[in-house]
Amino acid sequence: MKTTLDRLVQISRPYTRNGTLANYIPELTKANANALAICICDHTGNCTQSGDFNTPFTIQSVSKVVTLLYALESYGEDVFSRIGVEQTADAFNSIIKLETRNQGKPLNPLINAGAIATIAYIAEHEGKGTFRKLSAFLRKMAQNDAIHVNQDVYASEKRTGDINRALAYFQKGANSFSASVNIVLDTYFQMCSLEVHVKDLARIAQVLTNNGIIIETGERLFSEKTARMTKSIMTTCGMYDSSGHFAVTVGIPSKSGVGGGILSVVPGRYGIGTLGPALDEKGNSAAGVELLSLLSQELNLSIFQ
Amino acid sequence: MKTTLDRLVQISRPYTRNGTLANYIPELTKANANALAICICDHTGNCTQSGDFNTPFTIQSVSKVVTLLYALESYGEDVFSRIGVEQTADAFNSIIKLETRNQGKPLNPLINAGAIATIAYIAEHEGKGTFRKLSAFLRKMAQNDAIHVNQDVYASEKRTGDINRALAYFQKGANSFSASVNIVLDTYFQMCSLEVHVKDLARIAQVLTNNGIIIETGERLFSEKTARMTKSIMTTCGMYDSSGHFAVTVGIPSKSGVGGGILSVVPGRYGIGTLGPALDEKGNSAAGVELLSLLSQELNLSIFQ
Amino acid sequence: MKTTLDRLVQISRPYTRNGTLANYIPELTKANANALAICICDHTGNCTQSGDFNTPFTIQSVSKVVTLLYALESYGEDVFSRIGVEQTADAFNSIIKLETRNQGKPLNPLINAGAIATIAYIAEHEGKGTFRKLSAFLRKMAQNDAIHVNQDVYASEKRTGDINRALAYFQKGANSFSASVNIVLDTYFQMCSLEVHVKDLARIAQVLTNNGIIIETGERLFSEKTARMTKSIMTTCGMYDSSGHFAVTVGIPSKSGVGGGILSVVPGRYGIGTLGPALDEKGNSAAGVELLSLLSQELNLSIFQ
Amino acid sequence: MKTTLDRLVQISRPYTRNGTLANYIPELTKANANALAICICDHTGNCTQSGDFNTPFTIQSVSKVVTLLYALESYGEDVFSRIGVEQTADAFNSIIKLETRNQGKPLNPLINAGAIATIAYIAEHEGKGTFRKLSAFLRKMAQNDAIHVNQDVYASEKRTGDINRALAYFQKGANSFSASVNIVLDTYFQMCSLEVHVKDLARIAQVLTNNGIIIETGERLFSEKTARMTKSIMTTCGMYDSSGHFAVTVGIPSKSGVGGGILSVVPGRYGIGTLGPALDEKGNSAAGVELLSLLSQELNLSIFQ
Repeated sequence: MKTTLDRLVQISRPYTRNGTLANYIPELTKANANALAICICDHTGNCTQSGDFNTPFTIQSVSKVVTLLYALESYGEDVFSRIGVEQTADAFNSIIKLETRNQGKPLNPLINAGAIATIAYIAEHEGKGTFRKLSAFLRKMAQNDAIHVNQDVYASEKRTGDINRALAYFQKGANSFSASVNIVLDTYFQMCSLEVHVKDLARIAQVLTNNGIIIETGERLFSEKTARMTKSIMTTCGMYDSSGHFAVTVGIPSKSGVGGGILSVVPGRYGIGTLGPALDEKGNSAAGVELLSLLSQELNLSIFQ
Repeated sequence: MKTTLDRLVQISRPYTRNGTLANYIPELTKANANALAICICDHTGNCTQSGDFNTPFTIQSVSKVVTLLYALESYGEDVFSRIGVEQTADAFNSIIKLETRNQGKPLNPLINAGAIATIAYIAEHEGKGTFRKLSAFLRKMAQNDAIHVNQDVYASEKRTGDINRALAYFQKGANSFSASVNIVLDTYFQMCSLEVHVKDLARIAQVLTNNGIIIETGERLFSEKTARMTKSIMTTCGMYDSSGHFAVTVGIPSKSGVGGGILSVVPGRYGIGTLGPALDEKGNSAAGVELLSLLSQELNLSIFQ
Repeated sequence: MKTTLDRLVQISRPYTRNGTLANYIPELTKANANALAICICDHTGNCTQSGDFNTPFTIQSVSKVVTLLYALESYGEDVFSRIGVEQTADAFNSIIKLETRNQGKPLNPLINAGAIATIAYIAEHEGKGTFRKLSAFLRKMAQNDAIHVNQDVYASEKRTGDINRALAYFQKGANSFSASVNIVLDTYFQMCSLEVHVKDLARIAQVLTNNGIIIETGERLFSEKTARMTKSIMTTCGMYDSSGHFAVTVGIPSKSGVGGGILSVVPGRYGIGTLGPALDEKGNSAAGVELLSLLSQELNLSIFQ
Repeated sequence: MKTTLDRLVQISRPYTRNGTLANYIPELTKANANALAICICDHTGNCTQSGDFNTPFTIQSVSKVVTLLYALESYGEDVFSRIGVEQTADAFNSIIKLETRNQGKPLNPLINAGAIATIAYIAEHEGKGTFRKLSAFLRKMAQNDAIHVNQDVYASEKRTGDINRALAYFQKGANSFSASVNIVLDTYFQMCSLEVHVKDLARIAQVLTNNGIIIETGERLFSEKTARMTKSIMTTCGMYDSSGHFAVTVGIPSKSGVGGGILSVVPGRYGIGTLGPALDEKGNSAAGVELLSLLSQELNLSIFQ
């Protein structure tokens, strides 16, 4: 596996030049655009890494998967009374569908509007403890107590998060949630600013691969049903408005973030984390997508076989 | 004139039942839904009133005309580099066109997004003094130093103004303005909360009728060109997404507000203020529109003769 | 007047280079992009011409004004049960609002979808004679029996009119009209292909200036009310999605066509026709708009004075 | 299996009352709204049926899967240069995204606009033989030479297919394809009008289950890659704008039609055809979706396990 990963990282590395760093959060422009890394954990918990796996990065939208898992496991399908599960052909931060459809109900929990709505839903139950509980859940999935908020990125997100503020206020104004906008956005910005490594993403993915069980301890974090629903939403909505294209070319339930990370779940087999901060025009890691595509072909990982 | 107005108010009064009070600002639901009033000032400054002309009301979106006048007179056509002058077929508080067109440039200064942008433009030059200067300008036009902010409505606007917050943050996030969102929104909410009577609207309109000159003092407040541009924008955009219908049936440059007021300018002849808090589904005073329609037919006031 | 027109044509001529010929109807690309002409007829019927007034051109969307006049005069305000009178901020041939608003009711009669709906409305009453009656009405307004269909342009329109076919079939599919799509489109294409000179447009405009009366014969072609409604719709909707900008800078009720013609009505004073085939990005004659802007300033023609 | 199917059909039957017959094609309103049927073929070719499996119905949009398979197998991924693979949150016959995105490139091949584009793409290579070849391919997959066009439905589709005409003409007008609109639409209407039984859908699905091989004859009709791409597109786009919800609750790559049919592929295991003409508000069979949901839970058929 190590040899395979090293070879595919080498082949995919040039694709880092096909993307650009996210620039709407100034702090993200400090990342190394040429970085590329992968970690893959099998169903027994054995992990293999390659490339720049020591490079830290903020989790950004990959955290939306953890938020969704927490919400589904805690409150069940009632979550879907507030957030849809349909893909949109609009951009990741679009506000249009909030207005023309569903009167303020976001299309799905893996785009910004929907993740904000999911956090608002949780915050209505958990109040100010929302971030503490969500981040603890994430650390447990990753089995890494050292994961913390990158304060510089967090400050940068807060300073420049006006589109997310618009998404939150629009939903609040449409009476889509009752939680405090400030608490919701603060939780959202902190979750996005958690600093991780590819191994953390791979371990989080691996719990999904095992349908909720931490393999080393046998502890069940969430039910099979929660895992199944989450994997299906990742498949149809996880890669922004190229989710359909990713399903055709890669076929692995995944979620990307503008920090360059991608979390991928091969059911019953592998949890995968990749990093490549240079993004394509859809907001997904350019080299990360290429690397996953090659890996999927080589190891027959598509769920659509 | 008094006889005519009394008769038309009586005929139009039943139309107050065709509308409903604005309910998204809770304080506005306390208005008298059956009220109907008109004040008409001729070009010599002689004013005639009828109906419930002693009923106070908040100016709401009618203030957008004063903000536009101030901006055009102070900074000229450069204002249009930041705000368009096209009508939209979307609702008054729509955010869609901000996203799909013009990358954050609002369509016109008489809808919420555009008034927010106009205030932001002014605030970039005037800073914290923006509200003081705008409200002083409005009092001067109305020749009424007693006009003040209704603090209950202002507090209600602030509490429930989340859609306007979304409009402001979206534009800020699209780098459409650099002013402080808080100052801009606070100015916007205060301007909307100014308490007036129909005579105040009629006097403000009368200055436009006289192309910028206060008839009693001979003082020029703004240029003919500023007046002409403002009257044209009121004609194409002043009555939300029924501006075209209003042009066909009434034909008088006007601006309505959800407080039930309408300010109307008959060039060279009359400044008119009406009040009717019950609104039609477009957000315009139901009985006010009917009253103006009858008046326009009876006195041949349409500019499209 | 002749001296004034000659001077303004000379000043405006360079603006022909700011536009490009319409290219979606191949035949239109054969026009002379540098042509510029104007004809102005006063309320006594006295006409003055300047520039390339002998250049023929197809009337295109300017014919929508004549279709609207015919419909309003024949069937009254019932027309508005089928076609709105609101401006749109979408492009002239947009299909979006047909779907998201009004379930197939076009926004106004001066955009493609609305003109097609107006012709369909007439055709439901007049059947196959629709084009004959509409073109006879146009010839009478222009007092020019020689106006005929340019067969090359007509053939070109038919060959390439697929977007207009889409607009018609979409409305038919939404049950917005019951007339035959083929008759409607054929009438539409023929009306657009009528070949005229600037004097024809000026004479048609002049009948509107005189509120329906042909000055030479005293014959009334339509009522004052029909004239007033049409002038108001021209003001709010006549120049596609720059109607608001045109109102601010020119202030004359007008209608443009992609053949380069503009018909303008100065109430009580002038009927004006201009030609300038090079179009700006909104689809209006680049030099024609400039020429009308200068003329409006020089002769104080804005209705918003 | 027979016992299971009988029981689930009985439980699901009441859900036929939750839907209504498609009414935009008049001929479809003649169907039996209470019908419910299923056929399931395992990977060895053994088929089991239950319910009203003798009821014939027109295949409608289920044929889009066969058209897509034919296109991908014949011309490879070049198909995606003309048609996208993203889900839309707009309705199945929406024209909006054609205009606002991709300049006439439809979002995916399983909505009307995209199926029309796919047929146009094929017709540019195959000309007038397009329907003959597509229908022969479908008959071969179903191993049923008796499948034919229902002439009454075909005539009804042609008479009332104006929205589809609009979709075709809009794309033609945007230069998205060069094929004849008449040939394309005629092929589209004929493909939709093919009359089938649930067993035909199950057999077609079974070839996809076996990744392109007809199990009885060993003949390969298409490659594994074509099968994989098609299954992924069915998953993300096959159930109109409830594809995401269907993935969460059922998790089987499927395609529905307004005739009430659904074709479902359980990779490596089952090909399934269901019929239930009463449709939910998304245009999918109400009872068919319920039946598949129960079957998926009982037999663990979700690909997201």
